[in-house]
Amino acid sequence: MSGRIVVLTGGVGGAKLALGLCHAVPAESVTAIVNTGDDFRHLGLWISPDLDTLLYTLSGKSDEERGWGRASESWNFMAVLRTLGGEDWFQLGDGDLALHVERSRRLQAGRTLTDVMADYGRSWHVAAEILPMSDQPVATWLDTDEGPLPFQRYFVERRCAPRATAVRFDGAEQALPGPDVIARLTSPDTKAILIAPSNPYLSIDPILAVPGIRAALASAVAPVVAVSPLVGGDAVKGPTRKLMDELGMPATPRAIADHYAGIIDALLVDERDRGAPLPETAHDFCDTLMLTLDDRLRVAHAALDLAARTTR
Amino acid sequence: MSGRIVVLTGGVGGAKLALGLCHAVPAESVTAIVNTGDDFRHLGLWISPDLDTLLYTLSGKSDEERGWGRASESWNFMAVLRTLGGEDWFQLGDGDLALHVERSRRLQAGRTLTDVMADYGRSWHVAAEILPMSDQPVATWLDTDEGPLPFQRYFVERRCAPRATAVRFDGAEQALPGPDVIARLTSPDTKAILIAPSNPYLSIDPILAVPGIRAALASAVAPVVAVSPLVGGDAVKGPTRKLMDELGMPATPRAIADHYAGIIDALLVDERDRGAPLPETAHDFCDTLMLTLDDRLRVAHAALDLAARTTR
Repeated sequence: MSGRIVVLTGGVGGAKLALGLCHAVPAESVTAIVNTGDDFRHLGLWISPDLDTLLYTLSGKSDEERGWGRASESWNFMAVLRTLGGEDWFQLGDGDLALHVERSRRLQAGRTLTDVMADYGRSWHVAAEILPMSDQPVATWLDTDEGPLPFQRYFVERRCAPRATAVRFDGAEQALPGPDVIARLTSPDTKAILIAPSNPYLSIDPILAVPGIRAALASAVAPVVAVSPLVGGDAVKGPTRKLMDELGMPATPRAIADHYAGIIDALLVDERDRGAPLPETAHDFCDTLMLTLDDRLRVAHAALDLAARTTR
Repeated sequence: MSGRIVVLTGGVGGAKLALGLCHAVPAESVTAIVNTGDDFRHLGLWISPDLDTLLYTLSGKSDEERGWGRASESWNFMAVLRTLGGEDWFQLGDGDLALHVERSRRLQAGRTLTDVMADYGRSWHVAAEILPMSDQPVATWLDTDEGPLPFQRYFVERRCAPRATAVRFDGAEQALPGPDVIARLTSPDTKAILIAPSNPYLSIDPILAVPGIRAALASAVAPVVAVSPLVGGDAVKGPTRKLMDELGMPATPRAIADHYAGIIDALLVDERDRGAPLPETAHDFCDTLMLTLDDRLRVAHAALDLAARTTR
């Protein structure tokens, strides 16, 4: 398959698929459109967790064992911050801090997030394109039984313990898609658009909430294929299943397809979910658990094959 | 000697005397009024080199061998920053960063530098008082043969290589002394005011440039004793001697006393400078080289003894 491959993605799970894609096709033909709803200002710094996860993963610097952040990280900053009574609920590694400090400096100097990430990608020889969904701030908030919580407070500090009743994306209505986002989605050169197996509510919906992106997906020439985030009726990691329960959505491939109705043309389903309620639309099966690089390559190929067999 | 001891000080050399004072008298009776003319905004962070040197030295966390920064420091942040093309001429250790990030956060939240340093001192169990000379920004600039340079560019990036023709303190005229600075200098409870053997032009003059401080020294009840920064006609460290040459001042105890004329009542001179031109005012001799803690204690005692023998 030639042409550009675009993937809409959140952090860890989505980055695995993006890495698989970079091995399945020439990496320079891969564009990741990345959720920035998790971005937040912390200790005065601008933190972009999902963008940085893509950067770490695609540059080979991610910590595979811990599952987030950079490999060979040290934690001197946090240790000293703690002795000063600083906020220590969000872990910032010493090397990781460089991304945040330098990004904050450049943003304050008037550069865009898109520019900063493009520079970072070049600096670290990442051939794929890492595009923020928007250069304007969009903040994911959860309404919970403990009141409204910004994403990182819910996800990291409270470890997803509060019961969620709704998810919203502050600022999304005023946000514009990143400068190349619409062009990549609608270009005739784009051969497939994938939605990574990221959390639909927390990682993909913020992207879809940016005005223009949903319409671009609808008018795209390329088929749109989502990879189900469910593996045997559960999420591999994170609060997807708990959230689906709380929001009254059954943890089934059909519910995922319904959630993406009007956007996707086909769904790649984990083979463990063959017996679960399936979508009426096009779908295919694959072992979607991505533990090794071979797994990532397999899922990437399966998603691309499904896209190649799907017509709009 | 009972009562409060106040010391006007820059960074490394002055911090050594301050540490000696904290061992010579009860540490809680020592107040350091610290130069903030070296403070600067770097990478979007507020950096206060001299205040932090006092904090590190008086809390026992300074790196004695390197001569600046904290002991057991790591440098992951700088290493990553370099790979991103960030400015790397000013070294920021991983643990050290916590001071700057947390300080910047608090200043942006409306706290004063005096508050922040008092909190840091409490957090690290520093019994002595570390007072910024001012809560308003004062920036030391050097006019040089390469044009005007802010202090850190001159001192760190250019390693004092440019030839200086003048030193000025931007913002000093509009600055106020820190909230307790004047009270500490003029209090009847203060038994001695010392001027540390810091660079007179770069570390002490900025303090004296803050309106009100010079007058407070003149009207103080306590005697004011300076420790000469010269040891055998040269500076122990830093550009003092080179600067004195460039600014046309002989490197002699008398020139130091002349520089502080109207402010000091006596000068503690290094014994190696007995043969050099001496001040006409009160002076005493001591081995002022401070390599060990014993040295620091000796110089502290000698300065306090000279103050005790000096009447205003």
